[in-house]
Amino acid sequence: MKKIPVAILGATGTVGQKFAVLLDNHPQFEVRELVASPQSAGQQYQSVCRWKQNQPIPEALRSMVVKTTDAPLDSAVLFSGLDSSVAGTAETSYAKRGHAVISNAKNHRMDPDVPLIIPEVNSDHFALLKRQPYAGSITTNSNCSTMFLAMVLAPLHRRFGVEAVHVTTMQAISGAGYPGVASMDILGNVVPYIGDEEEKLETEAAKILGTLGDGEIVPAPFAVSAQCNRVPVFDGHTETLSVRFAQRVSPEDVSDCLRTFTGPPQELKLPSAPDRPIVVTDAPDRPQPARDVWLGNGMVTVVGRIRPCPVFDVKMVILGHNTVRGAAGAAILNAEAMLAMGYLEP
Amino acid sequence: MKKIPVAILGATGTVGQKFAVLLDNHPQFEVRELVASPQSAGQQYQSVCRWKQNQPIPEALRSMVVKTTDAPLDSAVLFSGLDSSVAGTAETSYAKRGHAVISNAKNHRMDPDVPLIIPEVNSDHFALLKRQPYAGSITTNSNCSTMFLAMVLAPLHRRFGVEAVHVTTMQAISGAGYPGVASMDILGNVVPYIGDEEEKLETEAAKILGTLGDGEIVPAPFAVSAQCNRVPVFDGHTETLSVRFAQRVSPEDVSDCLRTFTGPPQELKLPSAPDRPIVVTDAPDRPQPARDVWLGNGMVTVVGRIRPCPVFDVKMVILGHNTVRGAAGAAILNAEAMLAMGYLEP
Amino acid sequence: MKKIPVAILGATGTVGQKFAVLLDNHPQFEVRELVASPQSAGQQYQSVCRWKQNQPIPEALRSMVVKTTDAPLDSAVLFSGLDSSVAGTAETSYAKRGHAVISNAKNHRMDPDVPLIIPEVNSDHFALLKRQPYAGSITTNSNCSTMFLAMVLAPLHRRFGVEAVHVTTMQAISGAGYPGVASMDILGNVVPYIGDEEEKLETEAAKILGTLGDGEIVPAPFAVSAQCNRVPVFDGHTETLSVRFAQRVSPEDVSDCLRTFTGPPQELKLPSAPDRPIVVTDAPDRPQPARDVWLGNGMVTVVGRIRPCPVFDVKMVILGHNTVRGAAGAAILNAEAMLAMGYLEP
Amino acid sequence: MKKIPVAILGATGTVGQKFAVLLDNHPQFEVRELVASPQSAGQQYQSVCRWKQNQPIPEALRSMVVKTTDAPLDSAVLFSGLDSSVAGTAETSYAKRGHAVISNAKNHRMDPDVPLIIPEVNSDHFALLKRQPYAGSITTNSNCSTMFLAMVLAPLHRRFGVEAVHVTTMQAISGAGYPGVASMDILGNVVPYIGDEEEKLETEAAKILGTLGDGEIVPAPFAVSAQCNRVPVFDGHTETLSVRFAQRVSPEDVSDCLRTFTGPPQELKLPSAPDRPIVVTDAPDRPQPARDVWLGNGMVTVVGRIRPCPVFDVKMVILGHNTVRGAAGAAILNAEAMLAMGYLEP
Repeated sequence: MKKIPVAILGATGTVGQKFAVLLDNHPQFEVRELVASPQSAGQQYQSVCRWKQNQPIPEALRSMVVKTTDAPLDSAVLFSGLDSSVAGTAETSYAKRGHAVISNAKNHRMDPDVPLIIPEVNSDHFALLKRQPYAGSITTNSNCSTMFLAMVLAPLHRRFGVEAVHVTTMQAISGAGYPGVASMDILGNVVPYIGDEEEKLETEAAKILGTLGDGEIVPAPFAVSAQCNRVPVFDGHTETLSVRFAQRVSPEDVSDCLRTFTGPPQELKLPSAPDRPIVVTDAPDRPQPARDVWLGNGMVTVVGRIRPCPVFDVKMVILGHNTVRGAAGAAILNAEAMLAMGYLEP
Repeated sequence: MKKIPVAILGATGTVGQKFAVLLDNHPQFEVRELVASPQSAGQQYQSVCRWKQNQPIPEALRSMVVKTTDAPLDSAVLFSGLDSSVAGTAETSYAKRGHAVISNAKNHRMDPDVPLIIPEVNSDHFALLKRQPYAGSITTNSNCSTMFLAMVLAPLHRRFGVEAVHVTTMQAISGAGYPGVASMDILGNVVPYIGDEEEKLETEAAKILGTLGDGEIVPAPFAVSAQCNRVPVFDGHTETLSVRFAQRVSPEDVSDCLRTFTGPPQELKLPSAPDRPIVVTDAPDRPQPARDVWLGNGMVTVVGRIRPCPVFDVKMVILGHNTVRGAAGAAILNAEAMLAMGYLEP
Repeated sequence: MKKIPVAILGATGTVGQKFAVLLDNHPQFEVRELVASPQSAGQQYQSVCRWKQNQPIPEALRSMVVKTTDAPLDSAVLFSGLDSSVAGTAETSYAKRGHAVISNAKNHRMDPDVPLIIPEVNSDHFALLKRQPYAGSITTNSNCSTMFLAMVLAPLHRRFGVEAVHVTTMQAISGAGYPGVASMDILGNVVPYIGDEEEKLETEAAKILGTLGDGEIVPAPFAVSAQCNRVPVFDGHTETLSVRFAQRVSPEDVSDCLRTFTGPPQELKLPSAPDRPIVVTDAPDRPQPARDVWLGNGMVTVVGRIRPCPVFDVKMVILGHNTVRGAAGAAILNAEAMLAMGYLEP
Repeated sequence: MKKIPVAILGATGTVGQKFAVLLDNHPQFEVRELVASPQSAGQQYQSVCRWKQNQPIPEALRSMVVKTTDAPLDSAVLFSGLDSSVAGTAETSYAKRGHAVISNAKNHRMDPDVPLIIPEVNSDHFALLKRQPYAGSITTNSNCSTMFLAMVLAPLHRRFGVEAVHVTTMQAISGAGYPGVASMDILGNVVPYIGDEEEKLETEAAKILGTLGDGEIVPAPFAVSAQCNRVPVFDGHTETLSVRFAQRVSPEDVSDCLRTFTGPPQELKLPSAPDRPIVVTDAPDRPQPARDVWLGNGMVTVVGRIRPCPVFDVKMVILGHNTVRGAAGAAILNAEAMLAMGYLEP
């Protein structure tokens, strides 16, 4: 099978690097173009990229010459790890020029005609793509913390009806990019604030779990209250959740519902799909980011400590890999789903 | 003024060491006896104590010979940092023998006739001491995380009526004593479980804020749901709170109420009392344990990010020094209050 | 090919767990027996083992019942991760009973008739096994920090003659086992002392690089001065080296010598052997434990910053994975070499 | 006594902030002017300074309006924490205009007519000030790591003659300023490279310990080989040292020599001078940065583990507070010495 040539936008950044790693030897996509800021353009990837991954730069990309966002691109599919300061107009421009933009940037997530997708949850929202006025398209995945929250709320909401959620996050430093969080700010410390993060958690999940009515998404009606913290952890966002349901729901009900959850990526056996999108652990002190973040190659959401809540119904702890399932891996899975479901031409 | 001779029970442990530091040069109390486990007894404090404080062992204690809990003690007042495995019976035994035991151990906190005291909040509960069947007495302070929670809820509950609270804690390693948390478990990690901690948060605050009716404490009627995490921070417990009130309450109301809160320790100008028990910060990203934990010599509760909650009424972040105001400092302030209010003989 | 049944001694400890992980799906060895302390014996491995690895317990070992060191064992080959408090007599006893003990414990390393082996360096020392008075045998690998030092000194000493070495180590917490280093001792700290470690570095390398004369090993004549520190790193020992040679040697000479070094494990294509035992990096700020420790599956020694020394001849920074190449992986490679070279029966 | 008005150059940076803290309530100096980069100029200190100290901004400085380096200054004495990119010409310019510049910047340290001072060690070098062609003057203190090295070598060199030194440093993140080291680079990691640091250690100590001959400093003749590492420690540089002497010297000789060392700051009872510049510890595992860095208010050098070296004569571990005695505190002590010795007008 011939691979689809793709480009990475924002290739030198943290998310761009993760795209490079995860697309290395991908069975369907092949990175042919790298796009970054003007100061990197015209130079070899290995010489302009401050590589921060644990494995070496993929062989094929090392001496690839970086292009700017102004340059015309040959690739039909563009994976965007662009910074939000430029992603807005750049992605629109690419979509107008006929590219399928699969973006991790926040800019277009809440646009009415842009699907905000978790393929296990709302692949029907891909239908919004037909309403976009572009020769190409823009597809987005959610904020990293929202990804794990929405993944867990989806099966629960559909089966039991979620009414309200309190979530407190403890987020890894890799979520802030590079150089990102200064070591003087986080070593032995907790920073109880991450810009814009709480707003994303409080709005994006409702769109993802919303209903695609008359060509428009009606947000799910539950309320989310988020409190976001940065902690000295390298990879892996941990979140404590308390959920109030529309009916009486026990911890066992929640556990059963999450354990058996599955979706189109699993049915379609997409290359990056984990066997199960959610792993439930019975260990009393898990999930833990340093120990569990690589379960399912970083593509699962791990849930533990499911127990009664004295105020709401059930509380639990969830964890996911913020730069894999929470960012680059999510976008790649979106592209795989689009390909399998006919939204991308092979 | 002549100082009251006191003993430290569990003197070699983490809380015991903090008692030693905080009682050094205390204007009212003077450490005359040190009590520890049988394997330490009969030896000099400096030779059996694995000292983990940042300042040296107080001069006067270095060569003091350690006694066992079996030995008769001369001191009228005993500060107890005993491990919960022995504190239950040992403290009762001391109280029977006529000592005033001021304990940080959890064992007697929920006993109906034992006051669980934060002097700013419920010094009227000291009246329970008269109901104790001992020649001496037992007074307790709360669990460290509960201390800051109850301190903040107290003025809010009295003014507005608290109905429900969600709290997620991010707790420092020093709270687990020494050797306590293994470095392999916490370096770059979050452990979403601390044994018994959630239960304490969910019950102790209600007793502290309870009403001393007919010689008995009626717990405050609000519900607390706690989720407790250990994070790689040395000192300082950070907690995210969402509070539902019995009436409409704005973030400004909360902020005003907390800023102006004061109590008997401030009025009585107790030696260890901070100017204000609560410090409210307007900085967008505070409080932070590594930066704010020593405010007010570690005796204040710092509150920040007071803002509306989309699910409850108001959410906020609170912080306190777990081994000072949350443990040894709390016990010492209790003793100072007892002395000032006539529950200890000078 | 039929696999050789093996046992893991000290199976519940940190090194024992690493043996379990590294022997999972090994092409030549199959774990059939697990041995641990009396309090674990008779119970299933998964219920007595505080598992601290990032992947789950190998399926085949989960419900395997743990034996004590008193029990007779069926396996011909025993991988020992026993604690040094018991390894001495236990390993001797096993060897007497006919087992081939491949040990990571320190106890027998300096015994005159026990080979202390790095197969790339001194596989000729296996000949000592014939001088052992046992029906079985004892083979040891070096201390973790020594492993990387000796690996780097070996080709240099043979080509140029090493006269003196200064080495300062910065060692990971996983080297101390579990619970090992208390978090209160190491979070944001450096502990400039590791018990017995400096002595091992100063003596073991000389034995490994020694000459097997008349049935006896004459230690290499160079002097090593070691200063060992514990740092808040999870895996990976970093060491700074300054080397004085018997002749004029440039950084380029050193670099060339290390880059081209290879040995019997590479020639014999042993299953756990890396392509090259030493990887030399030209990056100005590498090796770094968090980034480079998994190079070559944790079986290589990474060397960087090779540069002139104003006092000696050449200085450099070296790094290796302390629990893989520095412990369990080293023992397994020793066993593979013994098998390939006729010291173990297939 | 009337205080001398002083300015802080580079007031918003890490060293500038430390000047602000250490000069608060100083008995001899009073901060009247704050100087920073053009983008901060004209605004209040509290609004442009990203304050990273553990105590609040000194009251008197909060609303002080920041000036640029172009503005004429009224203060006779200028404490410079300027970045090295601007310190060179700016400090010269200030000196020409008649100011006494007391600088922590590296730019002029090695200038032949600029004294590089540790007052305990080489206060006779102040005589160089008379050779400067300025209406004012420039005085420098050493690099932070060099400070502790030179402090320890000074008494040893004078008594025994130092011939060669190997030093490996493990340096705190605060030494890199703010934002400085990215958390993704240092959390759970060691970075074995700090730009220009090894060169400073290898040259500055020789100048400090040099002899002021015919108006020129003849560097001390010993060789230093340095290997510098960044470690995840907040404050405090730890260094391992091996020293070769011109004569036979035992660890006891070294210990006695260091314990009894004292200098002009102690004799003159300068306000910032510690009782003893060097504290020797006998504890087997000290000094440790997290525990010992605040000894003597961060103004002492702590030395431990003095023991024989199998390659050189004696090895040891030294520690000092990099931003106090290693930077701002060093400059302030220099100014105090100048005042006491007649190099500054009261």
